[in-house]
Amino acid sequence: MTDLFKSRIENIKNILSSENLSNLLILSDENIYYLTGFYGKNSGSLLLITDNKLHLITNFLYLEQAKKSIDNDSLNIVFYRRDRFKKLLEILEGYNFESVNLEGKNISFKDGLNLGKMLSRQNKEFKIKDGLVEKLRIIKDEVEISKIKNACKITDNAFNKILDYGAKKVESLSEVELSFSLEELMVKNNSIGKSFDIIVAYDKNSSMPHYSPQKIKVKDGIVLMDFGCRYTNYCSDMTRTIFTRNNKICNEFKKIYDIVLEAQYKAIKFCREGITCRELDSTARNFISSKGYGNNFGHGLGHGVGLEIHEEPIVNPESNTVLKENMIITVEPGIYIEDFGGVRIEDMLLVKKNACEVLYGSTKEFFIMADF
Amino acid sequence: MTDLFKSRIENIKNILSSENLSNLLILSDENIYYLTGFYGKNSGSLLLITDNKLHLITNFLYLEQAKKSIDNDSLNIVFYRRDRFKKLLEILEGYNFESVNLEGKNISFKDGLNLGKMLSRQNKEFKIKDGLVEKLRIIKDEVEISKIKNACKITDNAFNKILDYGAKKVESLSEVELSFSLEELMVKNNSIGKSFDIIVAYDKNSSMPHYSPQKIKVKDGIVLMDFGCRYTNYCSDMTRTIFTRNNKICNEFKKIYDIVLEAQYKAIKFCREGITCRELDSTARNFISSKGYGNNFGHGLGHGVGLEIHEEPIVNPESNTVLKENMIITVEPGIYIEDFGGVRIEDMLLVKKNACEVLYGSTKEFFIMADF
Repeated sequence: MTDLFKSRIENIKNILSSENLSNLLILSDENIYYLTGFYGKNSGSLLLITDNKLHLITNFLYLEQAKKSIDNDSLNIVFYRRDRFKKLLEILEGYNFESVNLEGKNISFKDGLNLGKMLSRQNKEFKIKDGLVEKLRIIKDEVEISKIKNACKITDNAFNKILDYGAKKVESLSEVELSFSLEELMVKNNSIGKSFDIIVAYDKNSSMPHYSPQKIKVKDGIVLMDFGCRYTNYCSDMTRTIFTRNNKICNEFKKIYDIVLEAQYKAIKFCREGITCRELDSTARNFISSKGYGNNFGHGLGHGVGLEIHEEPIVNPESNTVLKENMIITVEPGIYIEDFGGVRIEDMLLVKKNACEVLYGSTKEFFIMADF
Repeated sequence: MTDLFKSRIENIKNILSSENLSNLLILSDENIYYLTGFYGKNSGSLLLITDNKLHLITNFLYLEQAKKSIDNDSLNIVFYRRDRFKKLLEILEGYNFESVNLEGKNISFKDGLNLGKMLSRQNKEFKIKDGLVEKLRIIKDEVEISKIKNACKITDNAFNKILDYGAKKVESLSEVELSFSLEELMVKNNSIGKSFDIIVAYDKNSSMPHYSPQKIKVKDGIVLMDFGCRYTNYCSDMTRTIFTRNNKICNEFKKIYDIVLEAQYKAIKFCREGITCRELDSTARNFISSKGYGNNFGHGLGHGVGLEIHEEPIVNPESNTVLKENMIITVEPGIYIEDFGGVRIEDMLLVKKNACEVLYGSTKEFFIMADF
């Protein structure tokens, strides 16, 4: 096993012992990857951590992959054909646990009830223990930071290539084609693919924050692009809102664009270790509200990014999480006006002791495409 | 509201009344789309069906999208900022339900416990009711069949274009690049993207059924491609295993290839209304076992395809579901030999009264790429 995974397993074991827990059943594929190096996305794998041993339960489809990606003598890999919980119960027979602690966010209610019944036959109960591995994942280590920086660089490059296209070329594409061009640029530049379904929203569609691109041609006006890639399993996330051609619409948008941009700058300036996510959110939100657009910014300011595109910490008006050095978050204020359009500007930040580092270099100034 | 969604809502209401249920809370985005036309993928939306009204609860990010995609006067659209269940409880205050029926597969254990507590404050309990909308979705209507056939045609075309590349071009690509070429061909041919993470597995990697493509150059040997697209939200799924260059490896693979292919033909020939999924599975499985490779075919024969890439019916040795006309399933037998390689051949079938229709036209014969 590499030292990286070894030390992460030590860390989670320390958390378990500090909470007096004899075991933990992990169901999140990202948490399993983080601890073992095996990433079976949507594989339904289970990782049981006990004092003396780790047990990975995976299905036939992923067995060889698991064996090849894990290098750890104290990790027992078993596979199941139909019922992962039955296999788990076989393993648990060897243990005298009174209760099994498991991630309640990552198991369905149906499966949870079922597992509960099965455990009771062994005179074991189960307890919900969420967020233990996430406690580790929220702070990125050097290896992770370097991977995420690479993902951001690839994302930056793709955006800059689109800017180089010029208005004529962009206007020859549909929303779907433009989203695909972004993906293509990122894949050809060393990423393993997009990190989520890319949003390209032209004109009034930009007022829908989670719009899905359609086969609608981009013409002159506003284009909102929210995109990102995966570099060796780590995600990036970025939004830019640009304009093709200088026309009346541009002028109308300039006002809200400048408000969103200033809100974002204020958040970036304020972001550092020691403040709460709630405070960071309010920096941007209060400014947007003071300009009369509070109701048009209906989502949180941002979220953590890492193995998952949305992970802890969540940056919204309710979050009391305190920012710490080496957390990585987005700041993405927006103003959305139904039947008119929307502006969002999103960067990723690496939190430092007394400031933060913006992980993108792409322009955020109000940008009107020119023809070449 | 279009007649399509109207009749689907009538159908689900009929199921509810036949089961004496006063309400149903739907949490699956695909089920909500199927009934309303609003597809908020991963939006966490809720649809409450009651006798007199439907209530869609979605968050700010999807509100405008929901309003634009739904055309139904008896559907009340509300949005929440932070807590979808709190909003649900507000709506439920107006109803005297003793219990709320909900999809236990589509809510996490953590959320389920939380919702249960909130409901008990209104003297309501909740009951798990899974699979009611899926009962409808398992049989495809004309509109759905036509969309899925289009998705299959696009997938067919992409594969045929890859065959046209010839060995030289394919060998200039990595697994990641080849998977991206497949996606590109499908997007440029009218699909809205891939329907799942495409598998391109070269050489020994092909023995891992759910392998993730890497930056490994494809050279002479075996290439397994498992891919599909989305056409207007409906999925396709297809696997072909081909060979670049005629060499020793090809000859070794020819034997297992022919077994997999014959197993698949046997299943296709047997597939029709009235047989169980278990029986269909065993047709292919028994043949593969009779040739000595039973342990190398460790997954089910297939699965339903529609709005989701994996949906009902599941075709495996345990499934007693009886096939009915207009179900759409995959048949995908495979033989996987660790450190050697694997072969899988997958088609989609439309079940008919006395036979089935294969939805792909691409060759399945043992194919060695030539240079042009």
